[in-house]
Amino acid sequence: MRPTPPERAAVITSKENQWLKRYRAALAGERNAPKGLMGLEGAKLIETALDAGLQVESILVSESGKRHLSRLGHKVPSSTRILRTTDRLFASVSETRSPQGVAALVHARSASLDDLLRGTALIAVLIGVQDPGNVGTILRAAEAFGATGAATCAAGATGTANPFAPKAVRASAGSVLTLPILPGISFTILLAQLRVAGVRIFAAVPTAHAPTEHGDAALPPLLAPWEANWKPPSALLIGNEGAGLPFELVRSADARVSIPQAARGKGAGPESLNAAIAAAVLLYEASRQRGGVS
Amino acid sequence: MRPTPPERAAVITSKENQWLKRYRAALAGERNAPKGLMGLEGAKLIETALDAGLQVESILVSESGKRHLSRLGHKVPSSTRILRTTDRLFASVSETRSPQGVAALVHARSASLDDLLRGTALIAVLIGVQDPGNVGTILRAAEAFGATGAATCAAGATGTANPFAPKAVRASAGSVLTLPILPGISFTILLAQLRVAGVRIFAAVPTAHAPTEHGDAALPPLLAPWEANWKPPSALLIGNEGAGLPFELVRSADARVSIPQAARGKGAGPESLNAAIAAAVLLYEASRQRGGVS
Repeated sequence: MRPTPPERAAVITSKENQWLKRYRAALAGERNAPKGLMGLEGAKLIETALDAGLQVESILVSESGKRHLSRLGHKVPSSTRILRTTDRLFASVSETRSPQGVAALVHARSASLDDLLRGTALIAVLIGVQDPGNVGTILRAAEAFGATGAATCAAGATGTANPFAPKAVRASAGSVLTLPILPGISFTILLAQLRVAGVRIFAAVPTAHAPTEHGDAALPPLLAPWEANWKPPSALLIGNEGAGLPFELVRSADARVSIPQAARGKGAGPESLNAAIAAAVLLYEASRQRGGVS
Repeated sequence: MRPTPPERAAVITSKENQWLKRYRAALAGERNAPKGLMGLEGAKLIETALDAGLQVESILVSESGKRHLSRLGHKVPSSTRILRTTDRLFASVSETRSPQGVAALVHARSASLDDLLRGTALIAVLIGVQDPGNVGTILRAAEAFGATGAATCAAGATGTANPFAPKAVRASAGSVLTLPILPGISFTILLAQLRVAGVRIFAAVPTAHAPTEHGDAALPPLLAPWEANWKPPSALLIGNEGAGLPFELVRSADARVSIPQAARGKGAGPESLNAAIAAAVLLYEASRQRGGVS
């Protein structure tokens, strides 16, 4: 009898290693990651990226991922580098329990304000929305309700979660790949540009907002969603999950929009709707007034 | 110098042990848990339950939870049993990282169909909604948009997640404590009762539904949310996250309602909106047509 050979050590080629390093950096949104490079896992997201005309730089495919890749084959341009690896190594970078065995490095679309203003603008402006799941869900609703684009801004020290990070991409069901997005733009600059373009600015505010120290006199009118006129070019400002929009931003809007909610009997006022739900409802209202989307 | 005494073992009294057992069973929704008993953690949820007039059977309070309990003190009826414990023992049952130190066993409201039909009925009927987070979010939206109640049903072998389980309670921001809910009712029985009460039945369906083998001839009319008339007493049927509503149920509705969504260029049709987002948008539409809530 021959002795059982020692288990073969997993050999990582330097090509694989280099790719995995860049992929992990892209997933983590690290500083040393090439700017605008996204890591996408799974055939569906990669197909959405290809259909949207994004530049798919390279695809990592494991043994069991081959059939997924061959299904996409005719859509993959010849400029895309294909790197083959083992299921075992793939599993080490996968974010899912049962990996499909395909992942890609994709360049995010770099949108300009002109892209967002195409047609009758409807722009979702996320300001200090911290949860990547909420960011993705809002962008998904924006695409569904015919928004022309979205922008992400910081509220003071509170940034909006990266729309191209894995959690946001997944929650968006791929909408971050198809919707023109201006990530991380200064709100002051954006506001000036929107004003020049004649876009109306609506600030989403909670129903039961505490009386501010500033009083309401200085604030723009408070409207129910159906009282606001969403037919002209419009932008909707959506604030942080807890703190909402900074006072200065609310003051600079053309109107405040608040979703009427049933009061909860005695005790405290109603809990605010989840930020993503509220944003989706307002984007639906805009779409309804515009006669729906097709 | 005296030797350091050995660390004192945590002593669990039999009273504590008995309470913790019932609390854990209630959280897990185990069969041997007393029916309709919910485990609630945190001062806010317990206050909501007290304000809603629910029967708070007992409260477990740790050393650091005392200040929360004393804030609620005047609302706690004398019939509520208070059990004191250590922070250490409390942490062992807590579902949060930084526990407040108060938890309660509360009897869920047992709602009747008459409760749901009070006023101009607007009833959310969840049929095979499997994710507890979605169940809670939908019930939260139902309360916010003035629904008179909700019911949960199974779709064949697929049950709707328990609305009184911890994840659903948290996602509902306490709405499961205030909204009349009929949990786990047979849809056939519910439908017959809604028909007798003259309630219109709307079935939420995805926009891009695949042509069925049955054809569309046998199906009720397909309406945009704003084409449906939500002013009379209405019930909205919401189906499973993936499979939607069973065909037989869709056929038994007075109308199908579908939210128009922008198509995603070439490639596949649009991804359906998340079940909770879709339900919230439809409930908003009903509320809008009824002139909002107050």
